[in-house]
Amino acid sequence: MVQSLFPDDQHLGLMTDLYELTMAAAYFAQGLAEQRATFELWMRRLPECRNYLVAAGLEQAVHYLQNLRFDDEQIAYLRAHAMFAHVPAAWFERLQTLRFDGDLWAIPEGTVVFAGEPLLRVTAPIMVAQIVETYLITTLTIQTLVASKAARVVTAAQGRPVFDFGSRRAHGPQAGLLAARAACLAGCTGTSNTEAARRLGVPAVGTQAHAWIMAFDDETEAFRKFGQVFPGATLLVDTYDTLQGVRHALASGAVFHAVRLDSGDLLDLSKGARAILDQAGRREVQIVASGDLNEHKIRDLLAAGAPIDVFGVGTELVTSRDEPTLSTVYKLVEQETAHGSVGRFKLATAKKSYPFAKQVFRQENADGRFTGDVVGRATESLPGQPLLVPILKDGRLEKPLDTLAECQRRVQRQMRGLAAELLRLERAAAYPVTISARLGDDAGELIREHAS
Amino acid sequence: MVQSLFPDDQHLGLMTDLYELTMAAAYFAQGLAEQRATFELWMRRLPECRNYLVAAGLEQAVHYLQNLRFDDEQIAYLRAHAMFAHVPAAWFERLQTLRFDGDLWAIPEGTVVFAGEPLLRVTAPIMVAQIVETYLITTLTIQTLVASKAARVVTAAQGRPVFDFGSRRAHGPQAGLLAARAACLAGCTGTSNTEAARRLGVPAVGTQAHAWIMAFDDETEAFRKFGQVFPGATLLVDTYDTLQGVRHALASGAVFHAVRLDSGDLLDLSKGARAILDQAGRREVQIVASGDLNEHKIRDLLAAGAPIDVFGVGTELVTSRDEPTLSTVYKLVEQETAHGSVGRFKLATAKKSYPFAKQVFRQENADGRFTGDVVGRATESLPGQPLLVPILKDGRLEKPLDTLAECQRRVQRQMRGLAAELLRLERAAAYPVTISARLGDDAGELIREHAS
Repeated sequence: MVQSLFPDDQHLGLMTDLYELTMAAAYFAQGLAEQRATFELWMRRLPECRNYLVAAGLEQAVHYLQNLRFDDEQIAYLRAHAMFAHVPAAWFERLQTLRFDGDLWAIPEGTVVFAGEPLLRVTAPIMVAQIVETYLITTLTIQTLVASKAARVVTAAQGRPVFDFGSRRAHGPQAGLLAARAACLAGCTGTSNTEAARRLGVPAVGTQAHAWIMAFDDETEAFRKFGQVFPGATLLVDTYDTLQGVRHALASGAVFHAVRLDSGDLLDLSKGARAILDQAGRREVQIVASGDLNEHKIRDLLAAGAPIDVFGVGTELVTSRDEPTLSTVYKLVEQETAHGSVGRFKLATAKKSYPFAKQVFRQENADGRFTGDVVGRATESLPGQPLLVPILKDGRLEKPLDTLAECQRRVQRQMRGLAAELLRLERAAAYPVTISARLGDDAGELIREHAS
Repeated sequence: MVQSLFPDDQHLGLMTDLYELTMAAAYFAQGLAEQRATFELWMRRLPECRNYLVAAGLEQAVHYLQNLRFDDEQIAYLRAHAMFAHVPAAWFERLQTLRFDGDLWAIPEGTVVFAGEPLLRVTAPIMVAQIVETYLITTLTIQTLVASKAARVVTAAQGRPVFDFGSRRAHGPQAGLLAARAACLAGCTGTSNTEAARRLGVPAVGTQAHAWIMAFDDETEAFRKFGQVFPGATLLVDTYDTLQGVRHALASGAVFHAVRLDSGDLLDLSKGARAILDQAGRREVQIVASGDLNEHKIRDLLAAGAPIDVFGVGTELVTSRDEPTLSTVYKLVEQETAHGSVGRFKLATAKKSYPFAKQVFRQENADGRFTGDVVGRATESLPGQPLLVPILKDGRLEKPLDTLAECQRRVQRQMRGLAAELLRLERAAAYPVTISARLGDDAGELIREHAS
């Protein structure tokens, strides 16, 4: 059978690392499975090349939690797996009815976040909360990664539209859809991915590639014929000789509102193209630039006066090429036991975590500028805006999720809260994130207890 | 509606860049849509940090080509898109019946490939061959990227098993499945991704995470309780103090066959753990190492004598972190016209391509070592093994695709064909890939014609 390797709603149960399932079975066999536990998801540190992150991916995480189940085929697979030979039969029966029936708190999509801040907090029977680890990490990581990169690219473009052109270089077909969503969430104006645009209700953009030009013996004829079907299109002028291509576009008689440059020295060529267009009285024709662009190249082009009106960004955006991953973790932080609720933590070198369910409080000055975040216990009430809000209660949505448009507006507001140094492309002094006195004290006490 | 953003078999038509569809409509409107054309997919260059690539992703590309169609919803979307206002109604009707009914030649999965070598060659009505560009690029790129990284990691492990632990850091749920396939294809022994293992028939591996240990007040008790359900498991010993963890594992009474180290100085800790285990007479207990590993760290650990038996590799493998993309392109190279078959090419700076349908001929010496590849015209018959073979004829499979096991065996044979310098982790002198005299002459003639 030729396999697609598409995930689907009916097979989400096994979309997780095997060790989540062995632990789930062991919790069950030891009578612990239904004990409520709290896990949190956060990034251990910011990448060297990021001053902030933009939270994204919550909607797809909620879809997963609401559709998580094990079908017969998947349960049969686990029954037959040698490792599960000693697992009680009752566990496999329990899997048939397993649903995510816990609580989810989250920082809304489009919020600016920093290292050490829980983006998600899951409270559920420990067996269920454990199983969802892998999927929640991957879902939050890819979209937060791309949204964070997109925010930088959009900032560098200083108000000029930026389009996501990256689907072909995304890590597979679904990654293209997820990247398009994250990019548009964080400020891109549209995407070349047609299905993503259809599903998300964002603009689908693009007109012609080199193949169209190459399919004709003559570039001018190629433009003319395209213009007959798509009047007002963007014409791609760099197949042979870019500036000659601009002249051919003008000579073709095609109605076009923009030319696209996809290779070569974009500074020189955009200036050259602009001059030719202006000389022909076509000041309204825009110049679109693409071709291995990133935030640094865009900044440098604009600083040098490149007359570029629109940017298409692909590979660098959707792969977050300068750092293609985040240090996302999902850890047990608090647990109901026979002796009441206890904090949980890990001490291993360089991977220390703070125990207890947490809340993040963001403080602003009178100008609406963010001045610092305090991570405290979820039970604390501290000055500032609490960032985590309730999303699911007993597995059900507390209220409809934010629309993509609402998330986009949130990003715009949030970016205005960031100090200018953080918005620069270079590494800045870290935004202040501190631990509340109470969390610090309580964690310290727990560590002393453990050591004794 | 809460969206999953899963690709699915019923909605493949729009899983492409919008410009493929505008070009398709323009070919149609200009009466060119059914002209047969040949497009090829190749990598422009190798990443700086790769001496070779391992071709992968063909099966998923074939799935796409065999399931490509436009449903009513997707066609309605295009009809309503402002850009398509002048497109003849007949085109939208044509989309209803559009299928991939062309020919596909490909280099089989698991073959070692180099820059400039076509991995795929598509010959189909130009409209159809154009539409499939985006999906074919993304599908071949992600798997070739991960398979190529996996081959290096497996080589560095010198025969020790390497497991894919990367799903949580893959670029979304599907990327985790694709990465698991590519990693296992190129030599990894198994994956932590349970659904990937189930679908692909490869080993699913993993036993416990820190959460299990943290869920008990006492590490020894955590090991004991786990051993009751999973006798013979791997115990994770680094939650608090790694060497103390090894002693706790021994004291727990649990039956275990391995310990896993996931943090800290893996050289020191593996030596320390080995000494404790040996002193306890447990020479058969294996040491598994994980935690931000890559091929360089594995090589250095083994060179320093780290007694590690098994490696788990995650983030670096599935994101190909040192270079998270390939310079994959898909270009028109030959076209049937009213004047017969003509070569097509692009001249733009630094993105030059060779015209005409091609074949790659691989030459070997008497020891089975690859000595060089020659890229010639598809119609040529040159010394060496032709790498591209027929896969689809008129949209139908010529014969069943290779199984994953067959691809795995191919990788093993292919790696033996590579010179030792290419197998080293450092950049080596490029493997010789040349152009046949005939292709060179024919391309030169075409360029002169174009210039005149």
